[in-house]
Amino acid sequence: MDFQPNARCQAYLTKLKQFMQQHVYPLEQQVTEENHRLNHHGNWQDWKVPSPIPSLKQKARQAGLWNLFLPDDKLGQGLTCLEYAPLAEEMGRVLFAPEIFNCNAPDTGNMEVLYHFGNEQQKQAWLTPLLNGEIRSVFAMTEPDVASSDATNMQATIVEKGDNLVLNGTKWWTTGLGHPGAKVAIFMGLSNPENEKHARHAMVLVPLDSKGLEIKRMLTASQDYDAPYGHGEMQLTDVVVPKANLIMGMGKGFAIAQGRLGPGRIHHCMRAIGAAERCLELMIKRGFAREAFGKPIIKLGGNQERVAKARIAIDQARLLTLNAAWKIDTYGVKQAMTEISAIKVVVPNVLQEVSDMAIQLHGGAGVSADFPLAAFHAAARVLRLADGPDEVHMGMVSRLELAKYQKGIQ
Amino acid sequence: MDFQPNARCQAYLTKLKQFMQQHVYPLEQQVTEENHRLNHHGNWQDWKVPSPIPSLKQKARQAGLWNLFLPDDKLGQGLTCLEYAPLAEEMGRVLFAPEIFNCNAPDTGNMEVLYHFGNEQQKQAWLTPLLNGEIRSVFAMTEPDVASSDATNMQATIVEKGDNLVLNGTKWWTTGLGHPGAKVAIFMGLSNPENEKHARHAMVLVPLDSKGLEIKRMLTASQDYDAPYGHGEMQLTDVVVPKANLIMGMGKGFAIAQGRLGPGRIHHCMRAIGAAERCLELMIKRGFAREAFGKPIIKLGGNQERVAKARIAIDQARLLTLNAAWKIDTYGVKQAMTEISAIKVVVPNVLQEVSDMAIQLHGGAGVSADFPLAAFHAAARVLRLADGPDEVHMGMVSRLELAKYQKGIQ
Amino acid sequence: MDFQPNARCQAYLTKLKQFMQQHVYPLEQQVTEENHRLNHHGNWQDWKVPSPIPSLKQKARQAGLWNLFLPDDKLGQGLTCLEYAPLAEEMGRVLFAPEIFNCNAPDTGNMEVLYHFGNEQQKQAWLTPLLNGEIRSVFAMTEPDVASSDATNMQATIVEKGDNLVLNGTKWWTTGLGHPGAKVAIFMGLSNPENEKHARHAMVLVPLDSKGLEIKRMLTASQDYDAPYGHGEMQLTDVVVPKANLIMGMGKGFAIAQGRLGPGRIHHCMRAIGAAERCLELMIKRGFAREAFGKPIIKLGGNQERVAKARIAIDQARLLTLNAAWKIDTYGVKQAMTEISAIKVVVPNVLQEVSDMAIQLHGGAGVSADFPLAAFHAAARVLRLADGPDEVHMGMVSRLELAKYQKGIQ
Amino acid sequence: MDFQPNARCQAYLTKLKQFMQQHVYPLEQQVTEENHRLNHHGNWQDWKVPSPIPSLKQKARQAGLWNLFLPDDKLGQGLTCLEYAPLAEEMGRVLFAPEIFNCNAPDTGNMEVLYHFGNEQQKQAWLTPLLNGEIRSVFAMTEPDVASSDATNMQATIVEKGDNLVLNGTKWWTTGLGHPGAKVAIFMGLSNPENEKHARHAMVLVPLDSKGLEIKRMLTASQDYDAPYGHGEMQLTDVVVPKANLIMGMGKGFAIAQGRLGPGRIHHCMRAIGAAERCLELMIKRGFAREAFGKPIIKLGGNQERVAKARIAIDQARLLTLNAAWKIDTYGVKQAMTEISAIKVVVPNVLQEVSDMAIQLHGGAGVSADFPLAAFHAAARVLRLADGPDEVHMGMVSRLELAKYQKGIQ
Repeated sequence: MDFQPNARCQAYLTKLKQFMQQHVYPLEQQVTEENHRLNHHGNWQDWKVPSPIPSLKQKARQAGLWNLFLPDDKLGQGLTCLEYAPLAEEMGRVLFAPEIFNCNAPDTGNMEVLYHFGNEQQKQAWLTPLLNGEIRSVFAMTEPDVASSDATNMQATIVEKGDNLVLNGTKWWTTGLGHPGAKVAIFMGLSNPENEKHARHAMVLVPLDSKGLEIKRMLTASQDYDAPYGHGEMQLTDVVVPKANLIMGMGKGFAIAQGRLGPGRIHHCMRAIGAAERCLELMIKRGFAREAFGKPIIKLGGNQERVAKARIAIDQARLLTLNAAWKIDTYGVKQAMTEISAIKVVVPNVLQEVSDMAIQLHGGAGVSADFPLAAFHAAARVLRLADGPDEVHMGMVSRLELAKYQKGIQ
Repeated sequence: MDFQPNARCQAYLTKLKQFMQQHVYPLEQQVTEENHRLNHHGNWQDWKVPSPIPSLKQKARQAGLWNLFLPDDKLGQGLTCLEYAPLAEEMGRVLFAPEIFNCNAPDTGNMEVLYHFGNEQQKQAWLTPLLNGEIRSVFAMTEPDVASSDATNMQATIVEKGDNLVLNGTKWWTTGLGHPGAKVAIFMGLSNPENEKHARHAMVLVPLDSKGLEIKRMLTASQDYDAPYGHGEMQLTDVVVPKANLIMGMGKGFAIAQGRLGPGRIHHCMRAIGAAERCLELMIKRGFAREAFGKPIIKLGGNQERVAKARIAIDQARLLTLNAAWKIDTYGVKQAMTEISAIKVVVPNVLQEVSDMAIQLHGGAGVSADFPLAAFHAAARVLRLADGPDEVHMGMVSRLELAKYQKGIQ
Repeated sequence: MDFQPNARCQAYLTKLKQFMQQHVYPLEQQVTEENHRLNHHGNWQDWKVPSPIPSLKQKARQAGLWNLFLPDDKLGQGLTCLEYAPLAEEMGRVLFAPEIFNCNAPDTGNMEVLYHFGNEQQKQAWLTPLLNGEIRSVFAMTEPDVASSDATNMQATIVEKGDNLVLNGTKWWTTGLGHPGAKVAIFMGLSNPENEKHARHAMVLVPLDSKGLEIKRMLTASQDYDAPYGHGEMQLTDVVVPKANLIMGMGKGFAIAQGRLGPGRIHHCMRAIGAAERCLELMIKRGFAREAFGKPIIKLGGNQERVAKARIAIDQARLLTLNAAWKIDTYGVKQAMTEISAIKVVVPNVLQEVSDMAIQLHGGAGVSADFPLAAFHAAARVLRLADGPDEVHMGMVSRLELAKYQKGIQ
Repeated sequence: MDFQPNARCQAYLTKLKQFMQQHVYPLEQQVTEENHRLNHHGNWQDWKVPSPIPSLKQKARQAGLWNLFLPDDKLGQGLTCLEYAPLAEEMGRVLFAPEIFNCNAPDTGNMEVLYHFGNEQQKQAWLTPLLNGEIRSVFAMTEPDVASSDATNMQATIVEKGDNLVLNGTKWWTTGLGHPGAKVAIFMGLSNPENEKHARHAMVLVPLDSKGLEIKRMLTASQDYDAPYGHGEMQLTDVVVPKANLIMGMGKGFAIAQGRLGPGRIHHCMRAIGAAERCLELMIKRGFAREAFGKPIIKLGGNQERVAKARIAIDQARLLTLNAAWKIDTYGVKQAMTEISAIKVVVPNVLQEVSDMAIQLHGGAGVSADFPLAAFHAAARVLRLADGPDEVHMGMVSRLELAKYQKGIQ
C-alpha cells in the first residue's frame, strides 16, 4: 500500500494548480458575473458562452492540460483513472473550470462511449470535434413519465426501418442541451423489447438539428438553469437517423452504459471533493474575517468542531474515491461496483453538508451569488439524483454485501 | 392541558381551508408559471405581480380572511398568536398564499411595529394602506460589511440634524425591496453610539423614493430572486427624513425588534410547518404514482421509514411551535425566549430535511420547478439564516439553560 | 389549546417533587451502592432488595403517592393518563424511584390488565397484593426462537385439557423474574392457531412456583443484570393451571395487549424524559465544575450547542408524549396509534443521545457507576427494543400515514 | 498510489486468519461463558484467566503470530505500522483475541515505551517478560479529580529524594489493573512544575507490589468490569522507587506519550474496525435467519440501507486508518497529527453506530451476552473517551486546519 500519488500524476497536478492560479481564479468572479448577466433567464436560445472561456480553453490546450480524462496517450494524456482523479478534484474547485480543460460532463462520458464503443466513422464525425472542444454533446436517457431510478423503465423507442432507425419519445434532464455549441445527442431507447431486461435498449447518435427533434424547454435545477449548459426536455417524433448512427448494436445500451458510468462517477465525485475543499477554505477564511460577540466567528460555539468534521469527511470521501479509481484501473468496473456505488452515495452528501456549513457561516452572503457556495450546494443536491439516486446506489451496495452470505446459505 | 384548538381558531381554519381548496390550489400552477415567465430574471424594475393575485386578495378580504395575524379585533380579526398559528400553517402550504391574506413577511412584522409602537400619524400614513394591502413595505436591518448575526455590529447611522434625521449606510437582504408595490422601509441604524449595546440603535420610516436612497441590486437567495418580492441591497447616502418618521425614540431599536420578532418567528415557523406537510403529501402521492423494480417507490427500501420520520419530525415541530405561541400569549415574549429560539432552530431544519426527502423521492422532477419542492428546500435554507442563524438561537437556548445553574452556583 | 398542567396534576407534582427531594435523592447513592454490592452478579437466587426500599415504599404510600398510574380513584388516585404523565417523568429521574411509588414496569401494566380485564377472583388473588406492593409480577411474551418484533410469531402454547390449561414454551426477557418478590406471570401463548392472526393467542396467570416452570437464567441487558429485577429466561414444560387463570378468554391476547401497551408506553416515555432531564442537569453541573484548557468545560467547543440540542430535543419529546397521553384520554388508544408509536421511537432515542452527550462530558466518570449516566444510556438502548423495536413503530406510523392516501386512491 | 497490502502483510494476514478460524472462533463462546461465570463480579482479587487462554497464547507464539505490533524484526516480526494494521483488524473481531497474540493494550503501548525509551536494565526487567507474555502491565495517567481531557491538568507528583523518587497521587481508569498477571505500572506524574506545560511530567516504572500503592477498586465501564483486565483506581501514598525506574528523564513524560500514542491509536482503531466488520456480519446472518411479517428481517424496511451504510462507513474508516498508518511510517507521528486525531474520532463512532444497528436487528438477543454485540457497543462508547475524548481530537484537527490559514493571515 502506498498513499502517495505517482510522479506523473504529481507533475500534472502541479501544472494544473499553476494554471488554475494563473488563469482561472483571477477570472472566476468575472466569468460568474458575465454568465449571470447574459444567461440568468429561461430563454436558452439566447444563452451565450461567457467571453473569457474560449481563450482559456486555448491556453489549457497549449499547456497540455487537455482531455486529461481520456486514458489514451495519443488522444488524451494517457492517464489512468487513479492518476486523473486528483486533477478532476482540482478542476472541481471552480464551477466552470472542467470545460476549460475539455473535461466536463456529459462530454467526457460521451467521448468515452465513442472512444470505447464507436466505429471509425462515428469517431471521425463526433469524437474528433469533441476532443477538439469544437462542439458539445448531450446524453439523453432520463424520461419524465417513468421512475428513471429503474433505468429499465425507459420507454422511448428505437425501431429499425430499412437502413434507418426511427426514434420516438420524450427525454428530460438532458444536460448541456441549451449550450450554443451542442450538436449531437447520444440517445438511449427501447430497441429490443423482446429481450431480457438489460438487453432491451440501444444507444444512437442523433444530431440535434434532426427533423422531428424538438427542444421543449430548459429545466431549472434547484432554481437555476445552469446556463449556458442547461438541462433540457426534448421530444422526438419519428426522428429518422441512418443505422450507421447506432452504437455497438441493438440491445447493447446497458452494456455501454455500464462502462460509461464507472469512470464518470469517479470524475463527478472527485470534482465534488474539490468543491467541498473550496467550501471549507471559504468557510475558514470568512470565519477569520468576520467578528461577532467579540471574536472571529470561526472561534464561536461549535464552528471549530464543524471545521474538524468537514476536514475528516472530505478526507474520508477522497480516500474512498481514490480507492474506487484504483479498483477500476486494477480489476475493472465490474469488480468495483460496491466501491463505485459507495462513492456516489457518500461524496455528494459530503459536499451538501460541507457547503451547507460554509453557507451557514457566511450568513446571507452564503446563499447569495457573491460566493460559489449556493451553487455548490445546489450542485450537490442535484448530484444526489443524477446517475442514480442515493437509494439506488445504497441498494446496490447492500445487494452485493448480502450476496456474499446468500451464496453461503444456498 | 388541552391539545384541541379552540372553536374560534377551528372556525377560521375551516374557512381558510375551503378558500385554499376553492381559490388557491387551482391557480397554484398558473401563478407559478406566470411568475416564472414574467419574473425569472434579475431586472427587478420589470417585475410584475402575477395577474391572479389582486383578485385573490380581494376575495380573501371579502371572505374575512384578511390581516388574520393582527391581534386587534377591529383592524384584524383579534386572534391570539396561538389561534393564528394553525392559519399560518395552512397559508404556508403554497408559496404565494400568505400575501393573498395580507399575512406575508415582512409586511406583517412591519404592521406589528406600527401597530404597537407607531404614533397616530405614522399609522395613518403607513399602517392603514398596509392593512388595506395597497402598498408593501420592507425591513432594512442586515448589512453586508459586518456579521449581522451579532445585531449590535450594525453600522448604518441615524443622526439628528434640526428637525430631521440624516441616514447613511448600506443594507442588504432587504426582503420585498423589488416588489412593484414596495413604498416604505423600516430602517434600523446606530443612533446613540454612546449608550450600552442594546440601546444604541433606532428605527426610522424611510419612503423608498427618498433622495439619496439607491437600490443597488437584487440578490439571489439559493439561486433565485424570489421575484416579485426580491431581496435587495440598498445604499443610503445622506438621506433626510423628518423626525416624525422616528419610531418610539432614539435608541429604542432593539426594544422594538424584540417585540417584533417573537410573533414573527411563530409565523415563519408555522408557515414552514405547512410547507413541510405539503412536501410530505407530495412525497407520498408521488411514491404511490411511480413504480420501480416492480413496486410503487414509496414501498421501496427505507422510504417508509422516511415517511415515519417526516411525520414525527413535523408533529414535534408543530407542538413545539404551538407551545411557544401559547407561552407568548400567556407570559409574554420575554418569558418565551427559550421557546422562540428553539422553534427557530428546529422548524427550518425540519423543512429542509422533509423537502430534501421529498425531492429525493421525486427524482429529477423534485429539483425542477414543476413542483414547489425545490423552492421550499431553498426557503428552508434561507430561513436558517434569516432572523438569526441557527447558531445564534442555539446560543440563546444554551445561555438561558446555563443561567439556571449559574445563579445557583454564585 | 392550553399547555398548563391542571391543578390536580400540579398538586401531585409538587408533592412528589418534595418527596423526591426529601427522601429519594438523599438515599440515591446509598441504594445504588448497596444494590451493586449485594446484587452485581448473576446468581439471582441470592439477589436482595436494597435495605432502604421497603421503608421508602411505606412513606410514599402514607404520603398518598401510591399507585398514581391507575385511573381509578379508589384503587389509585384517579389520575388521567395526561395527569399522571408529569409524575412519571419525575419518577424517571432516579432509576429505582418508580418502585417506591408502586409505579414500576412491568407491574403497572400487569395491574392494568387485571384491573381492566381480570375477573373478581383474579383481582382478589393478584391485583390486591400488587396494589399493596406486597408481591411483584412479570409479563412473559418474548421468545428466544422467533423474531418477536412480529408478535404473531409467538410459539408457546396454551391448550385446554378438562378444567385446566396446559402451557408449554420458552420465554425470555421476562423482566422482574429475578426479583425476590416476584410471584406470578402473565403468560402469553398460542391458544387458537385456527383463528386469524390477531385472535390466536391468550393470556394466562401462572404462579411462578408452578410445577414445570423452570427459570433457566437471568440475561444481562447491555452488560448488566438490572438486579434485583432481572430479565429472565424461563421454560414451561406441561405447566398446568386451572382455567380460572385465563384472562378474558381464549384468543383474546392481542386485544388485551393493545389496551395494556398504550398507557404503558406513555409511562415508559415519560420516565425516559425524566431520565434525560437528569442527564442534562448532571452534564451542566459537571461542565461548570471541571476545567480544561483554562475554561469550565461546558464553555468549550460545541458543548454549549449540545446543551441547546438536548434542551430542545427533550422539550419536543415531552410535548409529543403529553399530546399522545391527551389523545389516549380523549379519543382512546385506537385513535392514538400514530402518536403512541411516534413517542416510542422518539423518546428512547432522545434519552440515548442526551445520556451519550452527558457521558462524554463527564469523561471516564460518565461510563462508571459513580453517576447514573451509564445506566440511563443502557436503559435507553434496551428501551429501543422493548415493547417493539423502533423499526416496528416507524412501520406503524408509516402505514397509518400511507393509509390516508390509499383510501383516496382506491 | 496502491491500495493492495504488500506480500509480507498478506502472508501474515492469511496465517492469522487461519489461526483465528482454527483456534479462536471455535472457543469464543466457551471462553466468554467461562469468563462470565468466573469473573462477572467486582471482587477482582478473585478474577481468573479463562482456562483456554494460556494454551492459545502458546500456540500463537509457536505459529510466529506473536508480538506482531512491534516494529523490530528480532523482538517482534519487524512489521511496519501499515503492515500490522490489517492484522490488528483481524484480532479485533474477537474481544479476547489480542491477548492471545501478545498484542493487547495497554501492554503493547507499554512495550513500545520500553522499547523506544527504556534503558537496558528497564528492558531486561520488564520488556523481556512482557514480550514473553509472562507478565502484564498497566498505564497510570488519568486522574479522578481533574479533567484529564487536558492532560496537563495531571496532579500526581514525582519528587526526587536522594537516589529515589517519591510518588503521590490517585489514578483511575488504569486498565488491566485487575488482571492476575499485572506486575508493573508506567506511572505519569508532575515532576517539574516549574517547566512549560508539556515539560512538567515524567514517567516512572512502579511495581504494583510497592509499599504505599493501594488498589482501591475496579470501575465498571458501561456496566461491566471488563474482567479479568479491569479498570482500576489506585492510590499512591509516598511510594518510593529507585531513580533507575525513571524513563528517559524528568519532564519527558509528554515527549514519550506523544510517541506512544500514535501507533497505539492505529491499533485501537484497526481493532475497532475488525469489531465493526464482525457486527455487520452477525447482523446480516441474523437478518437472514429470522423472519417477521413474512420476510427475512434483513429485507424489511430500511434494513438494507443500514447494511449499505455500515459497509460504506467501515470502508471509509479503514481507508482513513490505513492512510494514517502510512503517514506515521512515512513521515513520523508529528506529521500525522491530523490523521491520528481524525481516526480517533471517526472509528469508535463507526463501531458505536454499526454495533447499535446490529443490536437493533438482533432484538433482545442483541443486548444480551449471547452475542458479542453489547460488549462491542460498550467498548466503542468507552473508546470515545479513552486516549482523549472525541472533542479533544476534533479540537486538534480543527486547530491544525486553521493554522494553515493563520500563517497566511499574519
